Amino acid sequence: MAPLDLASPLTERQATQAKVAELRTLLGAQQLDAYWVPAADEHLNEYLPEAKQRRVWLSGFTGSAGEFLVGREQSWLFVDSRYHQQAESQVDPALIQVSKLGLDDQKTLVETLEALAQTQPGLRLGFDPFTLSVAQFRELEKRLKPVGVELVPLAENLVDQVRAQRPWLLLDPLPAYANAPLFHLPDALTGETVAQKLARVREALQKAKADLLPITKLDQIAWLLNLRGNDVPCNPVFIAYAIVTPTQAFLFTALERVEAALQAALASEVTLLPYETYSDTLKNLISESTPCRVLLDAKRTTLGTHCLLPETAQIVEAANPIEGLKARKNSVEIEQMKQANLKASRAKVRTLSWLAAQFAQGQSLAESDVAATIAAFYREEADFWGLSFPTIAATGANSSIVHYSTPGPQHLLQPGQFLLLDSGAQYFNGTTDDTRTLIWGEPSPSQIERYTAVLQAHINCARQQFPKGATGSQLDGITRSALWSAGLDYGHGTGHGVGMFLNVHEGPNGIHKRAHEPLEPGMIGSIEPGFYEPGWGGIRLENLYVVVELPKADAKPTDLTWYGFEPLTYIPFDQTLIDLSRLDSGQRQWLERYHQTVLEKLSPSLEPADAQWLQQACRL
Amino acid sequence: MAPLDLASPLTERQATQAKVAELRTLLGAQQLDAYWVPAADEHLNEYLPEAKQRRVWLSGFTGSAGEFLVGREQSWLFVDSRYHQQAESQVDPALIQVSKLGLDDQKTLVETLEALAQTQPGLRLGFDPFTLSVAQFRELEKRLKPVGVELVPLAENLVDQVRAQRPWLLLDPLPAYANAPLFHLPDALTGETVAQKLARVREALQKAKADLLPITKLDQIAWLLNLRGNDVPCNPVFIAYAIVTPTQAFLFTALERVEAALQAALASEVTLLPYETYSDTLKNLISESTPCRVLLDAKRTTLGTHCLLPETAQIVEAANPIEGLKARKNSVEIEQMKQANLKASRAKVRTLSWLAAQFAQGQSLAESDVAATIAAFYREEADFWGLSFPTIAATGANSSIVHYSTPGPQHLLQPGQFLLLDSGAQYFNGTTDDTRTLIWGEPSPSQIERYTAVLQAHINCARQQFPKGATGSQLDGITRSALWSAGLDYGHGTGHGVGMFLNVHEGPNGIHKRAHEPLEPGMIGSIEPGFYEPGWGGIRLENLYVVVELPKADAKPTDLTWYGFEPLTYIPFDQTLIDLSRLDSGQRQWLERYHQTVLEKLSPSLEPADAQWLQQACRL
Repeated sequence: MAPLDLASPLTERQATQAKVAELRTLLGAQQLDAYWVPAADEHLNEYLPEAKQRRVWLSGFTGSAGEFLVGREQSWLFVDSRYHQQAESQVDPALIQVSKLGLDDQKTLVETLEALAQTQPGLRLGFDPFTLSVAQFRELEKRLKPVGVELVPLAENLVDQVRAQRPWLLLDPLPAYANAPLFHLPDALTGETVAQKLARVREALQKAKADLLPITKLDQIAWLLNLRGNDVPCNPVFIAYAIVTPTQAFLFTALERVEAALQAALASEVTLLPYETYSDTLKNLISESTPCRVLLDAKRTTLGTHCLLPETAQIVEAANPIEGLKARKNSVEIEQMKQANLKASRAKVRTLSWLAAQFAQGQSLAESDVAATIAAFYREEADFWGLSFPTIAATGANSSIVHYSTPGPQHLLQPGQFLLLDSGAQYFNGTTDDTRTLIWGEPSPSQIERYTAVLQAHINCARQQFPKGATGSQLDGITRSALWSAGLDYGHGTGHGVGMFLNVHEGPNGIHKRAHEPLEPGMIGSIEPGFYEPGWGGIRLENLYVVVELPKADAKPTDLTWYGFEPLTYIPFDQTLIDLSRLDSGQRQWLERYHQTVLEKLSPSLEPADAQWLQQACRL
Repeated sequence: MAPLDLASPLTERQATQAKVAELRTLLGAQQLDAYWVPAADEHLNEYLPEAKQRRVWLSGFTGSAGEFLVGREQSWLFVDSRYHQQAESQVDPALIQVSKLGLDDQKTLVETLEALAQTQPGLRLGFDPFTLSVAQFRELEKRLKPVGVELVPLAENLVDQVRAQRPWLLLDPLPAYANAPLFHLPDALTGETVAQKLARVREALQKAKADLLPITKLDQIAWLLNLRGNDVPCNPVFIAYAIVTPTQAFLFTALERVEAALQAALASEVTLLPYETYSDTLKNLISESTPCRVLLDAKRTTLGTHCLLPETAQIVEAANPIEGLKARKNSVEIEQMKQANLKASRAKVRTLSWLAAQFAQGQSLAESDVAATIAAFYREEADFWGLSFPTIAATGANSSIVHYSTPGPQHLLQPGQFLLLDSGAQYFNGTTDDTRTLIWGEPSPSQIERYTAVLQAHINCARQQFPKGATGSQLDGITRSALWSAGLDYGHGTGHGVGMFLNVHEGPNGIHKRAHEPLEPGMIGSIEPGFYEPGWGGIRLENLYVVVELPKADAKPTDLTWYGFEPLTYIPFDQTLIDLSRLDSGQRQWLERYHQTVLEKLSPSLEPADAQWLQQACRL
């Protein structure tokens, strides 16, 4: 089929209309009543490579989350509360009906399909099985099968057909990453060789009584093979699949991007094969070793991979062991992450000092100036790779938008208004993420009161010792307790795991109400309570911490093993916003010690003006 | 087959040996290599009717938890740390190998079977599919199938065959409950008619797109039909199955125990059928209505029921809606539970006052005296039905045994030692459960310090306001926070749900690290933090609370809905054990108000001597 000619001068609206019309002809050819386009790609990435942003390309809506459903006559976009406004401004209601999830009388994808199925019994819904996890498919099937919707997985992605898209590389012009080579991270940064990692994964496979592990997630592959790449914005990963068996390991990727020396270095542990050979190799490996027990992580494997498994495969459902191994950083990784976060802390301290100087001079500053400045300071530190996520520099009412990510030149900083600065960088030795909220000019009593409450929540979590076995959901409650007592809360989790020069969001550790995994030594993650009131503004205070085992005290009446948090981030909290009289003695002691450590760690490497600002900022 | 003649004068050891030998002949006949006897029965009861205590009968071990595995030559008993000692004293190691779970080098059931399967490939394990839930079976299958164990569900329970047991009623002599009639709870106690409850269940079924609900759990059946019975110790339930469809409802039980008048009253809503017709009725109902979508709650339905479902059944997996409906008590039920818990509080206050008087007179008291006294006071209150669980009256080192339940006449109360008194009653208008820890004589500094820490934990949870959506695991963390900071913890959950004149343990609400369901208004449960040190003793402080919605305050900066806990239990905490200087002002205020309310609620109905004791106990 001829690809759509996007070079002709169509308006946005006409382009979308033409794309959707083209997709509808494919619906007809496949005898489908509707086609579902989720935001996910073949590797369940959080940030998608441009080539895989199919929903964006087809619908014109650019938000990171949201699902698109194209029926024979109608089409629907389903977005959560973060994107109600953006979706409305980006799509034409005559072409696409926006379903604002969370509002009354707005139908979800499933409810829309249920309603359609009432008038069209046996409705056939097409989709690409590689764009959802096994667990998501099961959930969907559970809801849709009883109402008579037939789920039809298709070998070819229909959006790619309309877009004339071939795997990863057929965007015109070629994106920068298409030729970016993969690179090896030395043992001095990773602390563990590929051989050692493979041995631990194989041990876990044996324990789970499994013979084969297919790997879908790019950060798992990058960690396992001590490789990094440049295929996805903000995440130093590369498009690939991998398979591990008790005796073999395979990496499937665009081989032209693996230089000869690296190929040679990898050869002793890993067989390199073209990306396109993943399916056949997986099928052959399983068919050759009968019976073959395949470890399947339903949450982190696509339905597409599940569909590839031959009948002879015995499925062992379990969490992919790499997820847990990757989360527990070794001592080398922890040391690297400390250094990387110290660089990022210095960059942010320099930004805060620069802001204070600009304010003092009465300079007019926009959100975009702040974002540009922190990026410049990040870049000045050694071994900078890029940002770990798009900087959030939000002022005034924008600070209450949790996922605000378009710092604008038109949004000027005003006295008496919050500036919320949530940013992070990728260095070759680690990933960073931190948030400070500050104010220029005189804060109001309510700004001080709520900032202090959020700070207390942060400190209560950061200083909590907890026994082996304690979970993120328990610590989430501990963090919120004081805020709840003051009638405050925040709609997001308290913390997420962070990779070692990998994704800024990683599992399985985290601090939120669905975090049921115990926190263990070596796990690195954020503590970031907040408070947001639309119109009034928002506060978020975020550091990264590593879980450490505390020394055993003889006097303790139990033989429990105790853990605690050690900070990786060292940036002062804005003292003009802290009501010290509200802190109890333990909270005050924590804050004093923290600010003292900030001074000790950063002062020696700062310019005199910045050191002076820091000295002032850390006084109590 | 001739039943084993238990009338002959066998020793315990010989009896067990003979029973196991008899079972082994059945193994041979069925070509099985082993037979698994779990502690559960056909209704997944926590407390089992005597007729269903198969593992107890066969193994001689009387603990409430523990699994028995009989192989061709060996047999194994698997018990957790609560029962290590008891199992060793009750079984003969020459006959049964005790596996003490939790200790190093002790194999679990699954590990034992894995090891057996290595020497016996294709090992056939027999079991009764009605003695485990679907979810438990799946877990077992996931582990055992890959190692080559064949799971063989058998239509007949082999232990029953050895025991010559027929359903429920063939014990000789007949137990008391065999003739106990079912009884109806009036709307004045339940606040909702059977018709109204059925309507709500049917609404939930429709929402879940299901046409049929089989009900396994006895408390769900009792709640739905406003009926109670006397078949299980401590739980006012009766052996039955039920089925609900959009137009019909069935109760399967021993009809001779339903009096004519009650049968007539039920007839408009429910079809009464003999217990034995459950299987056939279920199969027929499903076969008659094609397609039939059956709601299956894998955690609360036996594999046996699952196996009964014909091929044509479409399974809709979801939580049984009754579980959530039952947990959210209506205003009538809450009022009844308040009254019942006030009666139980009065009984416990009278016991504490009696204890103080006995101590003052230098009387020698045993644990069993305390248990007898609280039971007598419970019985003196109106509408007493029985205890809600066996009283725990534990002194000295016994108080550190969380599930201690054999208060002994040989265990005398000593000055300077804790007495932990955990007890509850069933009244026709409600179920109660509370714990106080007290001391006779002078407490030590560590007793005061730890008691105060546990009290703080209790108060921190009890006074916490929390937003709609907050979960039991978050509140569990909030409860433990202060204890953790002091290097203390407890190995059990913080709280469990409690039924309305039903089971003292019910779901889905609870406060523990696996409690992921939001707490909602009307849910009733315990808050019971503790601290235990073997040898030193134990502390537990338990009240029941109902979740209530708090009045909206205009001044609040968010539009969140806030919930809190209202106490149902009113018993003073032992002030000789409280270090008031360690409480913060909020904790002290809560305690003062609580003690003030205890006085107000109980003083008017107490004898002068008890009222005087209470006055003294509630001073601050």
